[in-house]
Amino acid sequence: MKGVERIGVSLEEELLSKFDELISKQGYQSRSEAIRDLIRRQLSSEHLANPGAKAVAAVCVVYDHHATNLMEKLTDLQHCHILQTISSIHIHLNEHNCLEVIVLRGCVREINKVAENLISLKGVKLGRISFVDVE
Amino acid sequence: MKGVERIGVSLEEELLSKFDELISKQGYQSRSEAIRDLIRRQLSSEHLANPGAKAVAAVCVVYDHHATNLMEKLTDLQHCHILQTISSIHIHLNEHNCLEVIVLRGCVREINKVAENLISLKGVKLGRISFVDVE
Amino acid sequence: MKGVERIGVSLEEELLSKFDELISKQGYQSRSEAIRDLIRRQLSSEHLANPGAKAVAAVCVVYDHHATNLMEKLTDLQHCHILQTISSIHIHLNEHNCLEVIVLRGCVREINKVAENLISLKGVKLGRISFVDVE
Amino acid sequence: MKGVERIGVSLEEELLSKFDELISKQGYQSRSEAIRDLIRRQLSSEHLANPGAKAVAAVCVVYDHHATNLMEKLTDLQHCHILQTISSIHIHLNEHNCLEVIVLRGCVREINKVAENLISLKGVKLGRISFVDVE
Repeated sequence: MKGVERIGVSLEEELLSKFDELISKQGYQSRSEAIRDLIRRQLSSEHLANPGAKAVAAVCVVYDHHATNLMEKLTDLQHCHILQTISSIHIHLNEHNCLEVIVLRGCVREINKVAENLISLKGVKLGRISFVDVE
Repeated sequence: MKGVERIGVSLEEELLSKFDELISKQGYQSRSEAIRDLIRRQLSSEHLANPGAKAVAAVCVVYDHHATNLMEKLTDLQHCHILQTISSIHIHLNEHNCLEVIVLRGCVREINKVAENLISLKGVKLGRISFVDVE
Repeated sequence: MKGVERIGVSLEEELLSKFDELISKQGYQSRSEAIRDLIRRQLSSEHLANPGAKAVAAVCVVYDHHATNLMEKLTDLQHCHILQTISSIHIHLNEHNCLEVIVLRGCVREINKVAENLISLKGVKLGRISFVDVE
Repeated sequence: MKGVERIGVSLEEELLSKFDELISKQGYQSRSEAIRDLIRRQLSSEHLANPGAKAVAAVCVVYDHHATNLMEKLTDLQHCHILQTISSIHIHLNEHNCLEVIVLRGCVREINKVAENLISLKGVKLGRISFVDVE
């Protein structure tokens, strides 16, 4: 197990009381846990700003499942980039639209490239990339 | 099938040539497809800025699978909010960390609330919410 | 003067050492100061997600100063919304382009509306809104 | 003057009518103008993702003007980086707080560095950087 350190932080009463209110609304059990999450998020944003950083990303694409051959093209693209595609979920949204969440692994630059290829396919209506730092 | 209209757009040669270069790099087959994607993204951002908008979201959480009971708590939370959780994928990242991608459906405000509950669990190290407009 | 409280935060050695490295690179003199900034930024994002929140915003617009009458229209728009426009800076970027930074005050919803009006003027090439929480 | 080209874009009636509604609300006089803005914003985001890209940025800092020596330190920092600081506006927000909008010029990496130095000063409560592509 990793060692744990305890540090002291001084802050204005008013700032502390607003913070306590926020984290209780969010469901945190302790201030330490909430502050650790803020720190991790900050480190993670810094890290992911580097195009060479290792990351995992969830790419969400909404597409028309009537689009000719789109599903095959999506599958092909995932297989071309087999090292980077870990897994995917397919969700039926309504009569016309499906959501596919594709989890990719690689460096930020490569993931962006693959995600752009997915999003630019004809029939894909919307795409979002959400990066997660895994270091 | 829906009707398709054709509109004319005038733009400076230099802007057009930079745009052509970008979309060819991204893999688009046509300018129309790339411009439709820009328009959809814009409409979608506007729509999702409304807390009451219907949406689907992929919530990515990285957590330590050694954390006592975390997996049960995550599962419980998903079941409490059963109407909103559609599906999830579990991915083993390394010795300590797992990634879970949880797809939630509901209005933006509710999804944020559930996602905050997931992210604030002790043992969850990082969380990201990625909203997708489904209208 | 406001009271100051001191709280204890426990965190893993590794997380702490990465955080120390980051904040020293950013120029912070103390961990407390860096953690207070993280907390303020978080509270501020939460607050500004509310369209009715009071805010100040810097709207940056890049425009072609050869565009007929653009400068008068920009000035008119600022005067129409006189309660919300506090101040502006004009910067000559190059032969064609100027940057104008316009500081607006009001609620998030109203600022967005005025900023959209500025950005949609013919001759304005790019616009960015940066909100600052003033509470 | 630069040449202007006219291209045709085909899109679904429903997408077009939602787009027309949005841009009329935003104040656009023509679809071409709105589409040019979408394209410029996209090119600009791509460009600014490169740490070496030339840019101008508005850095907004909120600070307590009672903080000892803060104003001198802010001024010193701007002078140290004299090549990058173009201009600034100072705005009195309330009894305690001032807003300073500082316009910096340089590459994205350098601007970030200077902005971090400004934001990490003791007494500075909040900071935001808004980048503008000037190419």
